[in-house]
Amino acid sequence: MDLIYGRNAVLEALRSGHNINKIFVQESAKPGGISEILALAKAKHLVVETLTLDKLDKLTEGARHQGVAAAVAPIEFATLADVFKKAAQRQEEPFLLILDELQDPQNVGALIRTADAAGVHGVLIPKRHSCPLNATVAKISAGAVEYMKVVQIGNISQTIEELQQKYNCWVVGADMDGTCYSETDLKGPIALVIGAEGKGLGRLVKERCDAVVSLPMKGGVNSLNASAAGAILMYEVVRQRG
Amino acid sequence: MDLIYGRNAVLEALRSGHNINKIFVQESAKPGGISEILALAKAKHLVVETLTLDKLDKLTEGARHQGVAAAVAPIEFATLADVFKKAAQRQEEPFLLILDELQDPQNVGALIRTADAAGVHGVLIPKRHSCPLNATVAKISAGAVEYMKVVQIGNISQTIEELQQKYNCWVVGADMDGTCYSETDLKGPIALVIGAEGKGLGRLVKERCDAVVSLPMKGGVNSLNASAAGAILMYEVVRQRG
Repeated sequence: MDLIYGRNAVLEALRSGHNINKIFVQESAKPGGISEILALAKAKHLVVETLTLDKLDKLTEGARHQGVAAAVAPIEFATLADVFKKAAQRQEEPFLLILDELQDPQNVGALIRTADAAGVHGVLIPKRHSCPLNATVAKISAGAVEYMKVVQIGNISQTIEELQQKYNCWVVGADMDGTCYSETDLKGPIALVIGAEGKGLGRLVKERCDAVVSLPMKGGVNSLNASAAGAILMYEVVRQRG
Repeated sequence: MDLIYGRNAVLEALRSGHNINKIFVQESAKPGGISEILALAKAKHLVVETLTLDKLDKLTEGARHQGVAAAVAPIEFATLADVFKKAAQRQEEPFLLILDELQDPQNVGALIRTADAAGVHGVLIPKRHSCPLNATVAKISAGAVEYMKVVQIGNISQTIEELQQKYNCWVVGADMDGTCYSETDLKGPIALVIGAEGKGLGRLVKERCDAVVSLPMKGGVNSLNASAAGAILMYEVVRQRG
């Protein structure tokens, strides 16, 4: 059983029609904060179980659940074809995000949330060496994981090759030694590659990229958090596309 | 006693000349990861105490300390005058960030880290209704809190008025109903105001701003995390200033 918790995450799961098995509500939860959740659950004829704070804490392993959780089917993964179909339906140039072995669920959740806001059509995550797409990712994404097409991929280098040859995508990696991000043309079909915190892009992955871009660093600490760097780059694509 | 933990945070505290009282190292810590810390500590004649994992866990209250912690003097706060002096010394237009009652130390730490990278001269945080500037903030900031001038302010509205009248700053708030951020001129002396997660800008604060800017929202979830929104806006200032 996968668990989603937190008011935003559960609400978004309900709104997006995600496959929910059951809703858990804390017995003393203020009705104000969860009334919309209860109304939607009722409309969808879902089972709602009331738990003591203690039991809800145990169920969510001590996470900040805000008095509500939902048991859901695991994330339904999409395919690359689904992603390009979505872009075509919206009549937009394809816009993809590839996460190169990110380990931190906080970063993955934050990047999926920003990707949703920036109009990214799909987020590609390698099956191996990545953090699992668990309840933490769903919560930090504020439910955006429900709207985003997430594709589990095998080998990143092979996927990049497929994106370049079959889908005509421009693959742009983020690293310390690239060209200035805002002076690089990011308007066409694009896949942005964000490297793991501390490690950056894998060598083979970097070699496969059509371009490598960097953000100016003006401070004492010469790196940005992966989710901040990703947010800045995704919105630069949005800005350039106008 | 304030505590910093994690290899990056302790290393940055040592490098930046922060007032450190003592270093704590886990007795079985791999020398590889902390050798630079130990060398710097020795050069600075600091006391290094070896603790069992259990004791270090207790000291850091179960946080991910990576085998090292440092007892430090609380953050030395700067004044507004310090911030404008720093901008003048660098011969740059003043660039400030105001955090409007942010509660989440993860966001505050992430914003200070990005502010450092973006060349912000000072971060202004209200004394009341903000999360404390604790070890979590320092760790998430990856040590950037050591380089950044952090100013504790009283009333935000009054501070904004001072910035406008005394320092000739353009005060720009981020909210849902503003003008497009990338079509707004952000080149002059500027203070960006970021609102609290979920709440946005306070009403009085918003009324005081010279302009309100928004980020385009193209997804199912119609808001961004405060640290992502702040990162995008700070780097838009960097981009426009060239």
